[in-house]
Amino acid sequence: MAAHVANRKAQMEVSMLVRDPAVCRSINENHFNYKYFPEHKLPENVTATSDAKTALLGADYCLHAVPVQFSTSFLEGIAEHVDPGLPFISLSKGLELNTLRMMSQIIPQALKNPRQPFSALSGPSFALELMNKLPTAMVVASKDKKLAHAVQQLLSCSHLRISTSSISITAAAPHIRLLFFCSCDEVVTPDNLRDVTGVEIAGALKNVLAIAAGIVEGMNLGNNSMAALVAQGCSEIRWLATKMGGKPATITGLSGTGDIMLTCFVNLSRNKRVGVRLGSGEELEDILSSMNQVAEGVSTAGAVIALAQKYNVKMPVLTAVARIIDSELTPKKAVLELMSLPQVIQTP
Amino acid sequence: MAAHVANRKAQMEVSMLVRDPAVCRSINENHFNYKYFPEHKLPENVTATSDAKTALLGADYCLHAVPVQFSTSFLEGIAEHVDPGLPFISLSKGLELNTLRMMSQIIPQALKNPRQPFSALSGPSFALELMNKLPTAMVVASKDKKLAHAVQQLLSCSHLRISTSSISITAAAPHIRLLFFCSCDEVVTPDNLRDVTGVEIAGALKNVLAIAAGIVEGMNLGNNSMAALVAQGCSEIRWLATKMGGKPATITGLSGTGDIMLTCFVNLSRNKRVGVRLGSGEELEDILSSMNQVAEGVSTAGAVIALAQKYNVKMPVLTAVARIIDSELTPKKAVLELMSLPQVIQTP
Repeated sequence: MAAHVANRKAQMEVSMLVRDPAVCRSINENHFNYKYFPEHKLPENVTATSDAKTALLGADYCLHAVPVQFSTSFLEGIAEHVDPGLPFISLSKGLELNTLRMMSQIIPQALKNPRQPFSALSGPSFALELMNKLPTAMVVASKDKKLAHAVQQLLSCSHLRISTSSISITAAAPHIRLLFFCSCDEVVTPDNLRDVTGVEIAGALKNVLAIAAGIVEGMNLGNNSMAALVAQGCSEIRWLATKMGGKPATITGLSGTGDIMLTCFVNLSRNKRVGVRLGSGEELEDILSSMNQVAEGVSTAGAVIALAQKYNVKMPVLTAVARIIDSELTPKKAVLELMSLPQVIQTP
Repeated sequence: MAAHVANRKAQMEVSMLVRDPAVCRSINENHFNYKYFPEHKLPENVTATSDAKTALLGADYCLHAVPVQFSTSFLEGIAEHVDPGLPFISLSKGLELNTLRMMSQIIPQALKNPRQPFSALSGPSFALELMNKLPTAMVVASKDKKLAHAVQQLLSCSHLRISTSSISITAAAPHIRLLFFCSCDEVVTPDNLRDVTGVEIAGALKNVLAIAAGIVEGMNLGNNSMAALVAQGCSEIRWLATKMGGKPATITGLSGTGDIMLTCFVNLSRNKRVGVRLGSGEELEDILSSMNQVAEGVSTAGAVIALAQKYNVKMPVLTAVARIIDSELTPKKAVLELMSLPQVIQTP
């Protein structure tokens, strides 16, 4: 995302706050992130630092991409350097284990500032394709309608989308600017713009569903089952999100169904790869220790059973994933269980 | 489908009415359909005939799988042999060009019997995977609730699904019995059971959307665009179906989103393959002349523009496909057009 934003305008200063000093050096000296995108040269206006104070000083926007489970401790550590008016744009997808909180709750609480401006960016968007400048569409949501619009205005990428809305680039070069494409219709209405819950819940739970999709693939159950499973998963996510105050149109839109399809049907997704390996019989521990990136769905799955109980929603597919991850269920047994669920045919 | 049904019970007589005498002989003498599934041995209780009278005599159910555009003339030709009480289970997906009729209208009108029992079967179901006995889930819809339930009751396939609903097999061996799996939840509620319009419109238009998905793939636009496109297409289908009296839950369910995902993301689909070839620059004529099966989406696309006008629904993706097929638009120009659609961000 940093590379993408920096590519937009050479005058922009994009500062990345990274933990690993080696990654930091590799970005500043060679303009490569050797760990995650070793083949992609980063624009010259992307710099890295491991010092939060330096990174945050004078920033106009902050894009938060720290994995959800580590966000609270990370944010508490940098809180003193965060301007109370600095708008956050959350790219993190997931729910905090135990507390069941979303990023829209984690950020203000960790920063001890209930009014910290917050928006969530979501939608079907593999980073690699963004870096290769392939057309991409996303959704931004914020309770603060002006911020949502500001984030939209910050986005433009003529080679990807010819927008008819006016794009105003402020004179001052912000540290980070955000790329954004909006679907052509319906997905972003004033209502949806504010549906942070819908966007966040869909973004979190699609990773759990992607594990289920991977399991079906790893077990070689075929595409018919895969489609049936993902459709069922979409419904389960919609039921839960709606009970939590989200809007059904968010879940059927770009940041719901759109992102779910991408994550479940395309094999680039980390979470799906975890599922494929689970489905072909590998142990979770071995899978996780062999990955160098976080598969957010594994942690989020832990929150699923608690959410299902709290909101009294039946989610047979998503809770089965949680039980497989907890080693309470084998993938094979889960499939048998799902196939033997009663048909809900009530004669009224 | 015939093979699948016949496999269920050896006493069942499954009779296939086919046009081609060579296919007919190949089925009866060698138990192979050399034209479509040359590698799949058919069960012994599947027979073929090219004589409608023989096929229809004493049949308990009729599974209609004739392509939509040929259905009227086909049905008018066999009408005299059709018992007015014979229940039809439609597997055909599409809309009749010019008249814009669905199968639920075509069948009773061609048979000149408005009360001919009708049901529609739909859902993510590649035939090849059904033949390989991989788990599959489908939806049946009928205005006649009893028929919908009867079709359900007729379905069982223990190796695929352990159903808790009682399955009663009538003593008399029907000519054709139907295989059916029902999703574990919500998708089949009494309401949806009767939503013939929703099931038929989704089934018809997903083939048009699959062409669009193929075009995106043929143009190498990446998975992010594909997901954005399909999500947009799902919305367009939902808007139209809802205006035509269908239920949103049908479109977000198994026979809507489920089937759409299968058709758009998996390359087994004929319609998607047409799109891939269009997207990589081939001419429609050359593509169609090289295929030995009907790509229903090509004809259905012709109905899309008329439907959009009749019901006053904006469907930018689906109408673009129609215009590409009519050679009014190149795939490249269509993508530019879609990317430059205005963002619908009203400030209320």
